[in-house]
Amino acid sequence: MTSASASLPSTLSWENGTLIMLDQTQLPGTVLLEPQQTVEQVWDSIKRLKVRGAPAIGIAGAYGLLVGLQPFRTLDAAAFRDKAAELARYLDSSRPTAVNLNWALNRMIQALQQSPQTDTAALYQLLEQEAIAIHEEDRKLCRGIGEHGRPLITEGCGVLTHCNAGALATSELGTATAPMYLAHAAGTRFRVYADETRPLLQGARLTSWELHQSGLNVTLITDNMAAATMAEGLIDLVIVGTDRVAANGDVANKIGTLGVAILAQHYQIPFYVACPSSTIDLNTASGAEIVIEERDPEEVRNFGERSTAPADVPVRNPAFDVTPHELVTGIITEKGLISPPYSSQLQAHFGA
Amino acid sequence: MTSASASLPSTLSWENGTLIMLDQTQLPGTVLLEPQQTVEQVWDSIKRLKVRGAPAIGIAGAYGLLVGLQPFRTLDAAAFRDKAAELARYLDSSRPTAVNLNWALNRMIQALQQSPQTDTAALYQLLEQEAIAIHEEDRKLCRGIGEHGRPLITEGCGVLTHCNAGALATSELGTATAPMYLAHAAGTRFRVYADETRPLLQGARLTSWELHQSGLNVTLITDNMAAATMAEGLIDLVIVGTDRVAANGDVANKIGTLGVAILAQHYQIPFYVACPSSTIDLNTASGAEIVIEERDPEEVRNFGERSTAPADVPVRNPAFDVTPHELVTGIITEKGLISPPYSSQLQAHFGA
Repeated sequence: MTSASASLPSTLSWENGTLIMLDQTQLPGTVLLEPQQTVEQVWDSIKRLKVRGAPAIGIAGAYGLLVGLQPFRTLDAAAFRDKAAELARYLDSSRPTAVNLNWALNRMIQALQQSPQTDTAALYQLLEQEAIAIHEEDRKLCRGIGEHGRPLITEGCGVLTHCNAGALATSELGTATAPMYLAHAAGTRFRVYADETRPLLQGARLTSWELHQSGLNVTLITDNMAAATMAEGLIDLVIVGTDRVAANGDVANKIGTLGVAILAQHYQIPFYVACPSSTIDLNTASGAEIVIEERDPEEVRNFGERSTAPADVPVRNPAFDVTPHELVTGIITEKGLISPPYSSQLQAHFGA
Repeated sequence: MTSASASLPSTLSWENGTLIMLDQTQLPGTVLLEPQQTVEQVWDSIKRLKVRGAPAIGIAGAYGLLVGLQPFRTLDAAAFRDKAAELARYLDSSRPTAVNLNWALNRMIQALQQSPQTDTAALYQLLEQEAIAIHEEDRKLCRGIGEHGRPLITEGCGVLTHCNAGALATSELGTATAPMYLAHAAGTRFRVYADETRPLLQGARLTSWELHQSGLNVTLITDNMAAATMAEGLIDLVIVGTDRVAANGDVANKIGTLGVAILAQHYQIPFYVACPSSTIDLNTASGAEIVIEERDPEEVRNFGERSTAPADVPVRNPAFDVTPHELVTGIITEKGLISPPYSSQLQAHFGA
């Protein structure tokens, strides 16, 4: 299985029992591949967003548990099991709202609980296999999304994306970027436009970096240039990621996604959302039920360490917005491309 | 005549023969009112954008000519006239593309040429009167725009603006902000939302500062939050400035204006453009004829001194975009509020 590109370092890799993490806080200036020596270091790396993106955090948590357990392989099996549970709780506290971190750590602990094994070395090996499986499954999900989305990207077209739903957020290939990486690998020539994505600039710092690093033809624009770029006829389709898709097809994603979707509709440009099927939440009826996290106003008043607005000016800083399903042309998942009407189609594909 | 607010320092003032300039490059952190001692200092201040905004630059140029001529009041009238012409050319070179600077300096020199006066002191006095007249006329233009736009702002409403077409860009009151300042002075309670306006952040650094400083209820948002803010029902109208209005009503303004106009149409929110009638260019048939300046890519790749993207990633950086007249609800000028159809209405109001 090939990676996104030969020149793009892996977000996370497990090499002879060592977790190697690409420090994303140093991008795009410095490519630092940092071995994670202790569980405290992994905790800190997750906390400080050295690794970010829901799937990547889950994978980091699973490997992080192994890192933490390595000094305890001399314990008896019962003590080792207790230590595993303790370290899983500890790692989970690094980003309490990251659902994937909790999910991955629970899966590791369940694997342990379901095993009758009394040999500690065998238990460690079982956990290592589980972590590698979590990592490998994510690779397959991204590849599946990429394969279903690839035909949308045709020779000479222009694709706009927002934020980073890229290889850096996952095992490899990403979600929104997976069709782009596979189309590029297949020799299709096309242009990508990456919104910089204020306030945290994931598009500038991460998406433009990973696509450029991988040899794709990517152009960085500020968020407010998307309309002019569409007006010039440079955009033929939009592909974005998502944090949650409701049962009616409403899509929660990084702030600014809604605006891009409205502009795309205005210019009759197809607007696609890419995600693994686990992101489709049939228990959420519509976007109206999704609570939007309001983040620190300092992110808007400052740019990095530099103050760019009056210190006491009121600010809004919603992390996400909700794009109504009417604006969504299709949802690209590892199980296929889902088209409207979403209420029935999502139920048919992903319902119990 | 009252200023925009008692607590907002004047962009420019002429006090007993001294030009005092608010250094806008220090905003919002520091309010520095800097006396301009020499013509070289004025040249440098214009060059470095300590003063910016088309009307303000013109006023600064006119006063700057006086600053430059002050040491030469002992010359005879002929030599004084020569010196004035020389200094006007020099000041004009500080920002060669600023039409208002050239216009104001030409007006000063023409006033000189049209006077038969042979007394140098009288010639200096005549120039001082001309500079004060240029300043005063701009105040009246802004006030006229404000009076025609004020009824649009009703109790409890929310107004979105983009970039800075504010008091800082003019003598006082601004263009897009003039209706807001007058509505505020009249006791109307309303909310303003200011787009930060990447890449140069005039909305964050200048608009949010001047409105907040003046006691208006202003909230700063990143450009990509406008859609979500509209979706929440918080915006009842949009008012922006413009650099040029074509004969058919197409509007060139700061990059991002087009996107705001499309979002406003989507949410059925009125979208107004405010400008003095001198901005309406009946010699430009449509927006298609307007050449868009492409600025330094480093503005997009960096934020202040901080690099935020790969050093060699391709970038677009158009300074302006063109909003088609179909998206413009009305044009607020000192002569009244112009409504569609613009081709006939602009000709009727501003044609020869």
